[in-house]
Amino acid sequence: MVIADGKRGDVPVSARAYADALTVEGLGPLVDAFTVNPFTGADSIEPFVEAAERSGSGIFVLVRTSNPGATDFQDLTFEGAPLFEHVARVIERFAGRLEGSCGLSGMGAVVGATEPEHLGQVRRILPKSIFLIPGVGAQGGRPEDLAEAFAPGRASALVNASRSIAGADDPALAAEELRKTLWEVSGARSRSG
Amino acid sequence: MVIADGKRGDVPVSARAYADALTVEGLGPLVDAFTVNPFTGADSIEPFVEAAERSGSGIFVLVRTSNPGATDFQDLTFEGAPLFEHVARVIERFAGRLEGSCGLSGMGAVVGATEPEHLGQVRRILPKSIFLIPGVGAQGGRPEDLAEAFAPGRASALVNASRSIAGADDPALAAEELRKTLWEVSGARSRSG
Repeated sequence: MVIADGKRGDVPVSARAYADALTVEGLGPLVDAFTVNPFTGADSIEPFVEAAERSGSGIFVLVRTSNPGATDFQDLTFEGAPLFEHVARVIERFAGRLEGSCGLSGMGAVVGATEPEHLGQVRRILPKSIFLIPGVGAQGGRPEDLAEAFAPGRASALVNASRSIAGADDPALAAEELRKTLWEVSGARSRSG
Repeated sequence: MVIADGKRGDVPVSARAYADALTVEGLGPLVDAFTVNPFTGADSIEPFVEAAERSGSGIFVLVRTSNPGATDFQDLTFEGAPLFEHVARVIERFAGRLEGSCGLSGMGAVVGATEPEHLGQVRRILPKSIFLIPGVGAQGGRPEDLAEAFAPGRASALVNASRSIAGADDPALAAEELRKTLWEVSGARSRSG
């Protein structure tokens, strides 16, 4: 699976050009999915959704990132909900347009593993979206804390661990251990849901 | 003047790579300035500021963009101030590190012309920053409404009009008329300030 993690975001006329470059009409998707920065609003996400509808790509929109500075803006509270929940609500408006297999949507969300309580908050707003979850390993997120990321009964999260695998003494073993823990966590969630 | 308007924004480790690509240590600036998306917070802006200190480039951080969708998140109000004012306050923390000529800072802000009242709000928070102002012309912003963008007595705004000049019957005349109007607007501000 190839994810173009460019976090592109621009006003609609420029967003359309980025989206076209990521999908190239007539050739099928260049990448399986790409990431989008939501700061400029729904009209700037729209061209990416149109390109994804056309090409079959998936999208992951930044919702709550895993870096310490995410608190500066994403956690500011407006009418009782942090900014990242408002972003999730805008994503939900697009979710029905990118239907995937197993009842999932190709309109996904980036939600970091470093503050696990956010995973449940966003999952409640986005029951069908696939979550792309950075922050496990080198950034401090623990795979055993990710249960709430998974929609009940669905393999609905991609956990991205780069440095903690690439930098391990035995990368294959590190990857296998992470996979095993996530399988247990998501399976327990699946049985309880 | 060359502005790399890529609106890059990512967590610190990736922001550093983007910043290095835009500045290339030892070669001087590849561009005069570049644009940055603030969604991921101050720690993600920091690597761009370090690269600008090193290379002599300027930075324009998205504060309030000119597209209709800017209202979705940038205008949400937290503790009595819209998100875009919170972004401006974070920019102000970096402004002293990029000193420019005439008392201006190389730590600039993108503030659209389509909602002119925002220009004064942001100017009060960022007295020394240069504003990059899109939205004049094709997007509906009028140059005669931009007075509050200018810091008193300083040529402190770059007004970007692309489609309304490139698509004019006489592009040279359209550019000259825009320049003349802006000169009058900023001059009146200068004398009154």
